[in-house]
Amino acid sequence: MAEIAILGAGIMATALTYPLTENGHKVRLVGTHLDREIIESIQKTGVHPNLDLKVNEGVTAYQLEEAEEAFAGADVAMSGVNSFGVHFAGEHLARLVKPGMKVLSITKGMEAEEDGTLHMLPEVLKSFFDPELAKQVSWSAIVGPSIAGEVAVHHDTAVVFAGDDQESLDYLADLFRTDYYHVWTSTDFLGHEIGAATKNIYAFAAGLGEGLLIKEGKQDDRYVRFNYNAAVFAQGQVELRQFMILLGGIPETADGLAGVGDMFVTSMGGRNVRAGTYVGQGVPFSEVRDNLMKGVTLEGVRAISVIGGALQPLTERGIIKPEDFPLCRYLYEVIEHDAPLDMPWHKFFGGEK
Amino acid sequence: MAEIAILGAGIMATALTYPLTENGHKVRLVGTHLDREIIESIQKTGVHPNLDLKVNEGVTAYQLEEAEEAFAGADVAMSGVNSFGVHFAGEHLARLVKPGMKVLSITKGMEAEEDGTLHMLPEVLKSFFDPELAKQVSWSAIVGPSIAGEVAVHHDTAVVFAGDDQESLDYLADLFRTDYYHVWTSTDFLGHEIGAATKNIYAFAAGLGEGLLIKEGKQDDRYVRFNYNAAVFAQGQVELRQFMILLGGIPETADGLAGVGDMFVTSMGGRNVRAGTYVGQGVPFSEVRDNLMKGVTLEGVRAISVIGGALQPLTERGIIKPEDFPLCRYLYEVIEHDAPLDMPWHKFFGGEK
Repeated sequence: MAEIAILGAGIMATALTYPLTENGHKVRLVGTHLDREIIESIQKTGVHPNLDLKVNEGVTAYQLEEAEEAFAGADVAMSGVNSFGVHFAGEHLARLVKPGMKVLSITKGMEAEEDGTLHMLPEVLKSFFDPELAKQVSWSAIVGPSIAGEVAVHHDTAVVFAGDDQESLDYLADLFRTDYYHVWTSTDFLGHEIGAATKNIYAFAAGLGEGLLIKEGKQDDRYVRFNYNAAVFAQGQVELRQFMILLGGIPETADGLAGVGDMFVTSMGGRNVRAGTYVGQGVPFSEVRDNLMKGVTLEGVRAISVIGGALQPLTERGIIKPEDFPLCRYLYEVIEHDAPLDMPWHKFFGGEK
Repeated sequence: MAEIAILGAGIMATALTYPLTENGHKVRLVGTHLDREIIESIQKTGVHPNLDLKVNEGVTAYQLEEAEEAFAGADVAMSGVNSFGVHFAGEHLARLVKPGMKVLSITKGMEAEEDGTLHMLPEVLKSFFDPELAKQVSWSAIVGPSIAGEVAVHHDTAVVFAGDDQESLDYLADLFRTDYYHVWTSTDFLGHEIGAATKNIYAFAAGLGEGLLIKEGKQDDRYVRFNYNAAVFAQGQVELRQFMILLGGIPETADGLAGVGDMFVTSMGGRNVRAGTYVGQGVPFSEVRDNLMKGVTLEGVRAISVIGGALQPLTERGIIKPEDFPLCRYLYEVIEHDAPLDMPWHKFFGGEK
């Protein structure tokens, strides 16, 4: 039996407590300052209000002030926040994590320097740690197509635990593996993080075709816009693999769960797709951000902003060509400069010719 | 202005008459013996009954008996039948096509020899031709994510014209290109045909998760089975690329319109997905074939039967390993031996480990 401490009590972090507890492990779920009501609810009734499900026996909920107690003696220390919370998680985990613990992150995304250099989030997390401590723990992450609620209701889910150290990955995979939670391991840590981060870019694009249909009043017509979505998805996959190669992942990783698989599931719906649908309808993105979806966490938009924003400096430095990543560049214009829907088809797939 | 003769008056062949006629070309649409009523309808009212749309001026419909007249002097000779009709098309085109014509096929699929050797359909088509005549025409095909009705109603569609001869491809692409019909060209003829044929295999698998939900009475639940579908899709993409490499296509073609793009659109719905949904619900496939969907053209099922059936002899000959293509092999068991739904997750992605 292992003890797992998780910082962050969102739906994904909480969903993962099901396979863990069903395997006989104990989970200490620590809410951030944003999770106060979630923790109160779990403490009082056992129910996670956003998942609308009761957590299993073996899960203990803690408020942030009790984090030290929760992490004391844990075997595994998880970062369960989203990409907006990674600095917060880094600051807290830097003091909560102790030598010998296995750090496991579920946060997907990247950060960029001004010159366009991109860093995966476990690296960002690690940068908050004392360098000596950072060496005394193992670093891993969970990636792959995984809608939290589906894990929580025991629907088949296939993921990859990626990290630096195979032994730690095997240990962690064993803690989580059940007959519905299928776990592969890989030491292509960077490649799996690249896939997990860049697929979010293309999920936003997955809503555009639907938006266009709505704008035209054709959403209930016999013929929708699957051809449109499929072409955008294929260009997304081309760019995802280009990112993989550009940033140093193994190209094959683009085909797997953290690449095309995660892009598929993220394209099927959710907040980023919804934001894209508004833009497809003709709403300037600033209006979506400041009004229609004000306050809604949009990881896809953040990915476009961060990764798309790195493309210009990378181009100026001659690392990529101006014609590379036409879809990501266009989405950046949508997000940052309210560009209207005008898909640059002729730039896709190396140029229409 | 060019004259295009098409053998077959199904919805895809007919949809392609819209971009052609809007570019000022003339189309002679020749029905097969199965299209008799379609041709009568177009001749009388201009309406294609299955598309439920009027064809443009510039389309002339012919019954099969008038095929010779229709093909006389054509610049382009198209095979517009589906994979079940390729022998029929080969027999007829062998006499209708004249030296100097450009042959363009829209038929997707493969055929297998007893030892597992697989052939793309344009090769099969060509095998009916006098070898001298075969050399005096150019051979090309249209592939990529293209739901016929969406093309017909002018929704953006991005496709690849693949063939042996770049000059012919450029000529053909020019005939079809409009502001909604986007055309790329490629001389990776084989690779594009492999993608177009193998994606049909995985479209069938795209229905299984939905069927499982229905069986469980959970189809209207908050949480569906997108994780399931995404993992199956990712394994499909892994196998599609493996087929590409095995059969001699360019690996990058797997990422493009005829690979992941076409797999995406085919997974979004249609007859093959519906057949998979029945199996997911627990119906033996033989019952689907002989009863629930009797008489319905299932190209995905044919692809599984032909390509999946080739895997055993290819394994025996040592060309592939027994652990290669676990999803395609499992689907073959479903189609040919009524295997129940029991997804072999642990065999995916090189084995769960």
